[in-house]
Amino acid sequence: MSLPLNIDASGRWMRTEGAADSDVVVSSRVRLARNLNELPFPHVAATDVLKAVREQVTQAAQSSKLLQKAHHIRLEDLSDVEKQVLIERHLINQRLLESKIASVIVEQEEIISVMVNEEDHLRMQALEPGLAMIDTWRLTDTLDNELEGALDYAFRPDVGYCTACPTNVGTGMRASVLVHLPGLVETKQIDKVLKAVSHLGLAVRGFYGEGTEPMSNFFQISNQITLSRAEEEIVDNIEKITKQIASKEREARKWLYSENHLRVEDTIFRAWGILRHARLLSSKESMNLLSSLRLGVYYKLIPDITPQMLNELFVLIQPAHLCVASGKDLQAEDRDVARAELIRARLRMKAAG
Amino acid sequence: MSLPLNIDASGRWMRTEGAADSDVVVSSRVRLARNLNELPFPHVAATDVLKAVREQVTQAAQSSKLLQKAHHIRLEDLSDVEKQVLIERHLINQRLLESKIASVIVEQEEIISVMVNEEDHLRMQALEPGLAMIDTWRLTDTLDNELEGALDYAFRPDVGYCTACPTNVGTGMRASVLVHLPGLVETKQIDKVLKAVSHLGLAVRGFYGEGTEPMSNFFQISNQITLSRAEEEIVDNIEKITKQIASKEREARKWLYSENHLRVEDTIFRAWGILRHARLLSSKESMNLLSSLRLGVYYKLIPDITPQMLNELFVLIQPAHLCVASGKDLQAEDRDVARAELIRARLRMKAAG
Repeated sequence: MSLPLNIDASGRWMRTEGAADSDVVVSSRVRLARNLNELPFPHVAATDVLKAVREQVTQAAQSSKLLQKAHHIRLEDLSDVEKQVLIERHLINQRLLESKIASVIVEQEEIISVMVNEEDHLRMQALEPGLAMIDTWRLTDTLDNELEGALDYAFRPDVGYCTACPTNVGTGMRASVLVHLPGLVETKQIDKVLKAVSHLGLAVRGFYGEGTEPMSNFFQISNQITLSRAEEEIVDNIEKITKQIASKEREARKWLYSENHLRVEDTIFRAWGILRHARLLSSKESMNLLSSLRLGVYYKLIPDITPQMLNELFVLIQPAHLCVASGKDLQAEDRDVARAELIRARLRMKAAG
Repeated sequence: MSLPLNIDASGRWMRTEGAADSDVVVSSRVRLARNLNELPFPHVAATDVLKAVREQVTQAAQSSKLLQKAHHIRLEDLSDVEKQVLIERHLINQRLLESKIASVIVEQEEIISVMVNEEDHLRMQALEPGLAMIDTWRLTDTLDNELEGALDYAFRPDVGYCTACPTNVGTGMRASVLVHLPGLVETKQIDKVLKAVSHLGLAVRGFYGEGTEPMSNFFQISNQITLSRAEEEIVDNIEKITKQIASKEREARKWLYSENHLRVEDTIFRAWGILRHARLLSSKESMNLLSSLRLGVYYKLIPDITPQMLNELFVLIQPAHLCVASGKDLQAEDRDVARAELIRARLRMKAAG
C-alpha cells in the first residue's frame, strides 16, 4: 500500500493560524494509554493475542464518531520509509515498529490517532496547534468514552487504568506542549526555567519526544505523574505553566531586540539568505536556520512567511518525507540536495527579493 | 582639504572589463624607485631637504604629459582617515605616512601615481586591470623618461639606479600581479605552486603588499631581483609565469566543478545569500564571501554581477572608505553595519531574486 496521507502538506496540528500562543507554543498533545481487560500487555503477548487486540480495536473504532473517516494503517503493509514518515508526522513512535502486529488509526486531519499494540494495547492521541491543552484533552476524553463503549478496558478502582509501564498507571495520560524558546536560550535563562519546570513535576524532552535531544530551541514539556491526580488538573497545570513560560520567552525576545537589534536581525537575515540560496542543507542546520526564521517572523522582519509554513517545513524536510516525495531512496547527500531544493521552493513561493 | 578622488567609485585599475586574463589576474603593477643625485635618502634627510625634493618633483611633474591633469596631494593636508583611503586604493603605502614631508601625485584615472619621500625620493607606479605587465611597464618607463628630463637621478653606471634599500638597487623596479587563486587553494595545490614560483625568483605576498598576509585567496606575486637584469626581461618573465599560474588555476576550477558541482554551488550561493542579507559584515568575512562570489561569476552562476563590481567592492568596503563615505568616524560595529549596507545596496542594484 502507499500511505493514505497527503505528505506534501501538514497535518492540521501544524496549521497554527489563529491558534492561541502560537508564537511560542507549536502544538499541544494529549495521549491516553489503555489496555484490554484480561489480555497480556503487547510485549508479552503471543501473535494471535495481538491479532485479536487489533481486530477488537478496529471494530471499536468503526463505532466511533471521531474516527468515522479515519485511515486504518497496518504497519506490515508499509515500507520502512513509509513507517518513518509516520514517525516524522508524530503519528507513531519508534517503539511501535518493534511490535509484530501493529497498526495506527489516523483521523483524516491527523488531529486524532490511535496506535494499536505499542507498549499498551491502545495509545490514543490528540494533537492540536498552539496552546490548546483543555481542548486537546476533551478530544481524547471524548474518543476514550466512545471506544470504552465498545471495549473492555483493564481498570482497577484502587489505582485506575492499568498500563504496561508503571509510570503510566492511573490516568494513563501524558499531556505535553512543544514550545519554541530561542529567547530564553539566547539570554541563557533556559536552564533556570527548565529546572523550575521540572521542580513543578513536569519533564522536558526533545522535538521527537522521550529519549531525543532538544534541538534548535524546541522543547517538549510534559507531565511526569499519572497517578492519583485528575486529568483536568494535570492538563490545567501544564496550560498554566506554559502560559508563564510563553510570557518569559516573550520578555526575553523583547529584551534581546532592544539590547542589540542589529545582532538579532543579522542572525535572522543570514538564516533567511542561506535558506533561500544554499544547495546543500543538513537536517540539523535547516532546523537551526528555520528556528531563527521563526523568530524573524515573530519580530515581523520576514514578510509573507507564516509560522505555519515553518512548522510544515520542520516536518517535510525530514529524511523519510524527502524520500517519499522524490519517490527514491535518497542517500545522505542527495537528501541534503532535496532538502535545500524544497526549502528554496517553499520560501520563494511566498517571498520575492 | 578633502580628497580630490571619487571614492564612491574605483580607480580604473579595478575596471577589468576587456582586460586580459581578468578571471584570474586582478591587476598588474610596476613601480620604479628613483632618487635625486647628491641628496640624502629620505629617512636620513633633514626637513628642508625633504621640502626641496618635493618641490623639485612637483615642478618636474608639471612638465610631464602623463601627469598633466594629476592631483598633487600633500599628506599633511589630509586627515588620518583620508590617508588610509589612499592606502586602501593602493595609491600610497603605510611607509609614506612615516615621512615628515610627503606627498603623492595621482593621475586622474588613478592608473599612475608618484609617492614623494617614501623610502626613496620617488616611487612611481602604474597599476592596470588584468594581466598587462608589458603595457604597465611601458607606462612607467615613459613616465620615468619624462621625469628624468627634469630631474637629476642618482645613477651609477656600474650598478644602475641608487636606492635607499639595497634590494631595489639596479633597475629600481618592482613588478607585480594580484591574482585570485581559489581553485588552487581549494584543491590544495597552492603551496606547491607558490613554492615553484619562489624557486623562479618571484616573491608571494598578501593583498596589501609586503608584510601583509594572503587573504581570501588573493596573492601578490612580484620580482625579487632588481639588479643586473633588464626591466623588459623581468616583466616578461612575470607575465609568462602568471599565464602559467592562470592556466593551472583554470584547470583547478574546472576540476573542482566537475568533481562536485553541488558543493561548489552551495559555497557560492551561500556567499551570495549572506552578502545580500547580512546586517553585520566584518572586513575579513566580506572578503572571503566576495572571493567565493568572484568564483561564482567565473562559473556564470551569478548573473549580472561583474568581476569589476567585486573588485570595486573589495576596496570600497575597507574601513577608511566606509568612514569617508558616511562622513563619520565609525567604530568597528558601525563599520560592520555600513559595510553590510553598502554590499546589500550594490549587489541588489544589479540583481533581483
